[in-house]
Amino acid sequence: MTSPSPTADRLTTSDPGPRTEPVLQALAAALPVEALVTGDAALERYSHDEAEWAPYALPLAVVRPRTAEQVQAVVRVCLEHGTPVVPRGGGTGLSGGANAVPGCVVISLEAMDAVLEIDLLERYAVVQPGVINDQLRAAAAEQGLWYPPDPASAPWSTIGGNVATNAGGVCCVKYGVTRDYVLGLQVVTGTGELVRVGRRTAKGVTGYDLTALLVGSEGTLGVVTEITVRLRPARPPEQTVVGFFSSLVAAGEAVGEVVRSGVTPSALELLDQQCLRAVDDWKQLGLSTDAAVILLGRVDSPGAAGDAEAETVRACFAAAGATWAARSTDPDEAEALFSARRLAYPALERLGPVLTEDVCVPLRAVPTMLARIEEVAARHDVRIANLAHAGDGNLHPLLVTPPGDDAARARAQAAFEEIHAAAIALGGTVTGEHGVGLLKRGGLQAETEPAVVAMYRAVRHALDPHGILNPGKVVE
Amino acid sequence: MTSPSPTADRLTTSDPGPRTEPVLQALAAALPVEALVTGDAALERYSHDEAEWAPYALPLAVVRPRTAEQVQAVVRVCLEHGTPVVPRGGGTGLSGGANAVPGCVVISLEAMDAVLEIDLLERYAVVQPGVINDQLRAAAAEQGLWYPPDPASAPWSTIGGNVATNAGGVCCVKYGVTRDYVLGLQVVTGTGELVRVGRRTAKGVTGYDLTALLVGSEGTLGVVTEITVRLRPARPPEQTVVGFFSSLVAAGEAVGEVVRSGVTPSALELLDQQCLRAVDDWKQLGLSTDAAVILLGRVDSPGAAGDAEAETVRACFAAAGATWAARSTDPDEAEALFSARRLAYPALERLGPVLTEDVCVPLRAVPTMLARIEEVAARHDVRIANLAHAGDGNLHPLLVTPPGDDAARARAQAAFEEIHAAAIALGGTVTGEHGVGLLKRGGLQAETEPAVVAMYRAVRHALDPHGILNPGKVVE
Repeated sequence: MTSPSPTADRLTTSDPGPRTEPVLQALAAALPVEALVTGDAALERYSHDEAEWAPYALPLAVVRPRTAEQVQAVVRVCLEHGTPVVPRGGGTGLSGGANAVPGCVVISLEAMDAVLEIDLLERYAVVQPGVINDQLRAAAAEQGLWYPPDPASAPWSTIGGNVATNAGGVCCVKYGVTRDYVLGLQVVTGTGELVRVGRRTAKGVTGYDLTALLVGSEGTLGVVTEITVRLRPARPPEQTVVGFFSSLVAAGEAVGEVVRSGVTPSALELLDQQCLRAVDDWKQLGLSTDAAVILLGRVDSPGAAGDAEAETVRACFAAAGATWAARSTDPDEAEALFSARRLAYPALERLGPVLTEDVCVPLRAVPTMLARIEEVAARHDVRIANLAHAGDGNLHPLLVTPPGDDAARARAQAAFEEIHAAAIALGGTVTGEHGVGLLKRGGLQAETEPAVVAMYRAVRHALDPHGILNPGKVVE
Repeated sequence: MTSPSPTADRLTTSDPGPRTEPVLQALAAALPVEALVTGDAALERYSHDEAEWAPYALPLAVVRPRTAEQVQAVVRVCLEHGTPVVPRGGGTGLSGGANAVPGCVVISLEAMDAVLEIDLLERYAVVQPGVINDQLRAAAAEQGLWYPPDPASAPWSTIGGNVATNAGGVCCVKYGVTRDYVLGLQVVTGTGELVRVGRRTAKGVTGYDLTALLVGSEGTLGVVTEITVRLRPARPPEQTVVGFFSSLVAAGEAVGEVVRSGVTPSALELLDQQCLRAVDDWKQLGLSTDAAVILLGRVDSPGAAGDAEAETVRACFAAAGATWAARSTDPDEAEALFSARRLAYPALERLGPVLTEDVCVPLRAVPTMLARIEEVAARHDVRIANLAHAGDGNLHPLLVTPPGDDAARARAQAAFEEIHAAAIALGGTVTGEHGVGLLKRGGLQAETEPAVVAMYRAVRHALDPHGILNPGKVVE
């Protein structure tokens, strides 16, 4: 694996190790010819996710199974040969969770992309792991139903990847995260069994909740081959409230005002001028503004209740010192602002390698945490753009470094770790929704008492006794 | 342990085994004098929960710790002596999960009954496990907040017990179950460590979700000593809709109508004439009716949206053939009907030993399942009263036998198992919210594929390597 040092680069992968032909032969025997991907260019394409700073190796092989039985066959081959297995969804992860490790087989689930069933009465969908988040949402919407979890990567990330990382998103401030919607899973286990866990009924407490345990386990406890998600009825249209603020801290105070008001917004997003400018330079959405920071609030209660909530959010923005705050009367403008929110990460990536934070702090600590981020940026001379699911206290400071500037990378790495430490000191966590992967392993150790890390290891060993599932990720 | 045969009786407990004095001496040394309960009468009181048909033994000792450190000391003493530990909340369980096993120490958490903190801004409460559900709800309400999970046992059951069984209740049809509200736990582990798992932030994905795993684990993976629960803002007042039906199946069809309407009720409860009469005979609430079955619907959307929902529910009841359906204009009457719902179980218990089912089936299977229950009751000549969280498909047929009638008990036991089998055949589960405990162990095996049972065992062994935590419960 390449080193995570500031001089590591995406293309300077280390030697992938000897081509252990027996595994490749066994895979070729077990799979249809089109399911086995070979050739260094193709292998490179599947060797890492979007965590640009995380180390990775070239995999021994990449497989693109089309059925759960093919996934099981691959895991069984890998068990026989002691070969590590790295499951992979859309490759949009931001922590290196899908990065290839030396000598591994990457199982890309992208070809298992069918929405198998949508049950209108029971309100669930059964999907294969390669279904794109937005595709599931569209399929549900056709039936008058709604799948809430909406990570910014929704147009590109898969439900399987969302399950692996317990993905969040914009609406989870009101509607919860992926784990809140996963009813059941079909999984290939660390011992090569193909099993179903969970349920399709509204309730059920038979046995341990392995479903909740597997969600967010980043491919280290099983390879998910099918997912049953709970759906909600379609909701009323949202109303958008926009606030301009002269500082990050003022915007952070406005978040506290909204929470104290008792309104639960359906979105409460923060984005700073750097994010807006980067998107505007790329997509020409005409969004640039003199405001240093924008808060985007949404509410979705029906009828007059929604009107009252929108007015409350507007008043909270104003009370916290917004330089401008108004309910958006132009749906296109509101949509453009939320598009900017989704496009901010790829827009900033165009400017240079981005190191993405994902800290989550208590709500009352949001202004303090934002101030710490500014202070860290100034002290280390690092460019930090700020995005946040502010209503959850889930902040995404994005550390942008000029391409090829090793000194800037070293400073950014130091800032990254200081931001982790600050979040932990404020009672927060190093990862709110992106997962531990490779980049937050140190953060996990810093945040978690050793006896709990020992429990993680014990559970991992119980379900992956041969240590072949995504080794080196989350906890060693 | 007494046998679960039809001739078993609550008072004919078997020999508790030798009094292994070293354990008692070690406990006495580790605890304040008032925390160690002795004397057979006292031990008997702590030897079982309300699952009248489940076997139990007299414990070796009962401890009533006041601090987490005392719980830890007890677990460490028990580890040293290889003594089983049985954690216990309010003793209102219905599956035998808290029943004493031979030679065990029962840890009653009832004296740890403090609400430690309610955080208005972050919307969580930190409580000790012995806090009664209704007490937490009242403490939250004083702050304008709401703890939704509301099992019928809310006036008597503890939050610790609710966590152990992942308790449901009336409002979970809209608001989810206990697991959906537990953010974090302090736990004494199977190796005697005192640890914290989970978080207090809105989101967090660092490490595996041990919190979700521990919820519903019935004291087999750790002894919970503190619980952090998420709270919601207080909600608008509910409106109640009452429907009378001439048959169980007609009421079941009405449930389907409500679900198809797109309305998510905040309660959708079924109770039959036998339940109403039993409550009326006991409490004289004046509820008796000629209707064979009553559905109680509630909605809680704000303002005009709530009015529209209530009207929709009424129309659904009427469309499914209700003999009478109306929005309740008398809040006292509505409250009395929901009281009857909560009191039905203790009211029926006055008539003889009750064997409580807790099956949960897909919503479209509710009418079929209700018909099967009637058919099983008739065929086995067993008196079965019906209660249900109908909107969840979670049915509680209550098998009532005359005291001392062994033949009736044998018939009830056969009916009990047939109802399990019918629920599984319809895609359901043997336990929606009461837990496996002792009574549903066979049901768990029938419902769960062997490879998944093996995963349960592996996880259990990982977290309780010495096998001292509530042995014999859930899975052996």
